[in-house]
Amino acid sequence: MSRIEAGVPVRAAESVAAAVEPGTVLGVSGFGSVGYPKAVPLALAERGDAADLGLTVVSGGNVGAEIDETLMATGAIARRYPYQGSDEANARVNDGRLAFHDRHVSQVADELLYGGLPAPDLTVVEAVAVGDGWLAPSTSLGATPALVEAADRLVVEVNDAQPRGLEALHDVYRPGAPPGRDPIPLTEAGERIGDTRVAFDPGKLDAVVRVDRPDATYEFRDPTAEDRQVAANLANFLSEEIERNPALAEAVNLQFGVGSVGNAAALAIEDVAFGDREVAYVGEVIQDSVLDAVDAGGLTAASATSLALSAEGQNRLFGDLDHYAERVVLRPSDVSNAPGVVRRFGVVAVNAAVEVDLTGHVNSTHLRGTRMVNGIGGSGDFTRSGLVSVVAVPSTAAGGDASRVVPMATHVDHTEHDAGVVVTEHGVADLRGLSPRERAREMVDVAHPAFRPALDRYLERGLESGGHTPHDLETAFDPLERE
Amino acid sequence: MSRIEAGVPVRAAESVAAAVEPGTVLGVSGFGSVGYPKAVPLALAERGDAADLGLTVVSGGNVGAEIDETLMATGAIARRYPYQGSDEANARVNDGRLAFHDRHVSQVADELLYGGLPAPDLTVVEAVAVGDGWLAPSTSLGATPALVEAADRLVVEVNDAQPRGLEALHDVYRPGAPPGRDPIPLTEAGERIGDTRVAFDPGKLDAVVRVDRPDATYEFRDPTAEDRQVAANLANFLSEEIERNPALAEAVNLQFGVGSVGNAAALAIEDVAFGDREVAYVGEVIQDSVLDAVDAGGLTAASATSLALSAEGQNRLFGDLDHYAERVVLRPSDVSNAPGVVRRFGVVAVNAAVEVDLTGHVNSTHLRGTRMVNGIGGSGDFTRSGLVSVVAVPSTAAGGDASRVVPMATHVDHTEHDAGVVVTEHGVADLRGLSPRERAREMVDVAHPAFRPALDRYLERGLESGGHTPHDLETAFDPLERE
Repeated sequence: MSRIEAGVPVRAAESVAAAVEPGTVLGVSGFGSVGYPKAVPLALAERGDAADLGLTVVSGGNVGAEIDETLMATGAIARRYPYQGSDEANARVNDGRLAFHDRHVSQVADELLYGGLPAPDLTVVEAVAVGDGWLAPSTSLGATPALVEAADRLVVEVNDAQPRGLEALHDVYRPGAPPGRDPIPLTEAGERIGDTRVAFDPGKLDAVVRVDRPDATYEFRDPTAEDRQVAANLANFLSEEIERNPALAEAVNLQFGVGSVGNAAALAIEDVAFGDREVAYVGEVIQDSVLDAVDAGGLTAASATSLALSAEGQNRLFGDLDHYAERVVLRPSDVSNAPGVVRRFGVVAVNAAVEVDLTGHVNSTHLRGTRMVNGIGGSGDFTRSGLVSVVAVPSTAAGGDASRVVPMATHVDHTEHDAGVVVTEHGVADLRGLSPRERAREMVDVAHPAFRPALDRYLERGLESGGHTPHDLETAFDPLERE
Repeated sequence: MSRIEAGVPVRAAESVAAAVEPGTVLGVSGFGSVGYPKAVPLALAERGDAADLGLTVVSGGNVGAEIDETLMATGAIARRYPYQGSDEANARVNDGRLAFHDRHVSQVADELLYGGLPAPDLTVVEAVAVGDGWLAPSTSLGATPALVEAADRLVVEVNDAQPRGLEALHDVYRPGAPPGRDPIPLTEAGERIGDTRVAFDPGKLDAVVRVDRPDATYEFRDPTAEDRQVAANLANFLSEEIERNPALAEAVNLQFGVGSVGNAAALAIEDVAFGDREVAYVGEVIQDSVLDAVDAGGLTAASATSLALSAEGQNRLFGDLDHYAERVVLRPSDVSNAPGVVRRFGVVAVNAAVEVDLTGHVNSTHLRGTRMVNGIGGSGDFTRSGLVSVVAVPSTAAGGDASRVVPMATHVDHTEHDAGVVVTEHGVADLRGLSPRERAREMVDVAHPAFRPALDRYLERGLESGGHTPHDLETAFDPLERE
């Protein structure tokens, strides 16, 4: 199967990069740090005038080091949306050299097309094949269809390091324009409602670039004893919830956040007695743990927008793509994370956090309200619209020196109206239906014992001040004493 | 047309109230302070042991004085969801006598049926008629279908003061249970996809109560000069937005919050040159201003879940219900506010706030982070899922003594990821696509000039501290000096 059937010249990445003008709004494919273009960004980084380019770079989600480390380090990028995940980008975001705003994953496509984010002058997409008016995406789909549609011009990087067969995983459904948009006609996790390819106006295609460079693969740390205890508490909660919640009597759709919480959640589901319920994964990123569960038959289907796998996981998937395509589906991120879809799928969402406060406000992104550690990603989409929204975190950070349960969140990404359940290694705080005062007592109980006295004292001060929500604004952000 | 066709006895409210046991979870119809039961709550308040009843009262939204003043004042209500709007309830919420948690309007029905809120032992619904397995709702629909479905037993108050013809306005569509729920098949503001009646299991119906007592009507204050300037700035923004936003080229779906912001928004739309665009209202409450625009032909349709009208507006509507039913539709609140519907309708949402901070976090509910002033209502549903989300507020409160633009919101109901545009009488801060530092400068510019120096000084301190989001946690909640 030929990978290049488009009637445009194959050009060197350097030639494409040389034509990029200062101030360009550059769209790039990529989500979960995979499926992003590699050659053109590296060639841009090689330009002598890179530091003066003042680019705006818009992706679907996280991309790899070629963009957010190498190109970023040259100073070529002045502005970045809607996610960044590298040390270099983070340092620049935090000292103000990089203008950044992170956005809900589900909204990026609409914001590109209908206001909020700048439309790309040029979008560069990694593909496994390209033809006359179509491209077959690689390891992620993300906001690629919208980045292509919104762009004036298009360059496709055909990456020989990505198997041609990846096309089979994709289900490219495009919601129409509001206000006349039809409902997304998705009713089951594994259903296919679109095409395997992204369509585009052939007149937009400037060039095809050939590259042979794999995505970086993920390395997962082994779960700690603390992670295992969080997982055990989560398993207990899920086992009880599926018994009492009538919406979970026959089928359960799960979502886990990326990273250690995803691992903990995967550990947890091994211990949940789902009985004869159909269990599916309906998230944004497919990690090894999800693939394991598909292989073991624990999941009937897994849908997401990206494949964030270890080298081993990637080998396993790439080795039998047609087989996996029967149960693994990649969707555009405005479909995988669509609030209407998440809500009607009754998703049980499990996500991590930087800190959670006494009344259930969640900070997913900032240290001490100022320094960004990572973007919100899709945590807001699932936490807000999920049927059961769980925040699962170890009770401390920084080797035990800092409590993740705090009096008042120094930055709020998800409000008390959104997350319903908080799980730590010390227990489960089921906040649903509780008043702020009641929530606060539950939250103290899942904090690390060394921080409970300080939290109790804060709560007493808050209750003395009076009001629906117990707070003492003068000491709300004082670092908590460990005892 | 007979109003009572059900085969159960008509009973006195006192008889129904006498049978209510302590600790009962009581569901009541009502939204926007109309369409709620009146006789049974008043009879409950007359019980000698009212103070010991320890009721949990769950409604769709705001209800009238019979419940949240008279019954509340007896101490009969220990717990209340998901909204309260009276001085009596507010005082009890703030001193901890009333356990309360306010919830997104769109989620109340699902939380009643699938976890989060307690299912009612008894639901009392105001209707204009009742039959064998059906009731015709009055001036609001709210969460009534779910409150009826989730309840063990049902009592219907047939209110002769509400016109029988109100039935014609309702469109009772019931989403199925997740995870197999179908998309809500709504594609136009004025479309009807359900029945005019709420169906129920006839075996649930305990009694019918006859009552003749009107809803209290709204009184709107005349817009101040400041309101008019907010409206003028909003009109300018909307005029520009409909020109530049491709999703608004042919049709515009508007939502306004309740109260003075609704009035300001209504003033604004009179001044927007919509050209030949179809303009509809897709909100949660229909106020006089919406009815005016329907009458004037400015709105092709108006859909909501409640009729919050002045006496004059009510007379006008009640005088020609069949005529209005062609363009005015009342939906259950899990349909009117459904995030999937709001998003695909591309709603332009305009809501008020208590305060907005420098990076766009919005507080809709609390004074100084502790004292609740009102619930979040549907502001989160529309602010989060709207295509263009505007917060429109005068720049000051408390007669000019307090700035509504603050360094850091003392309570967050809508995050920086949700609201995109802030309008005050001093201008428009279009925050979309801006980094937190850039947002802060825009926000200072729409603050009242008397507070700008203090905001500027705060921002300088925040920038000195460093980090993506400029804050100085030590002084974040210090009251702003007026100069």
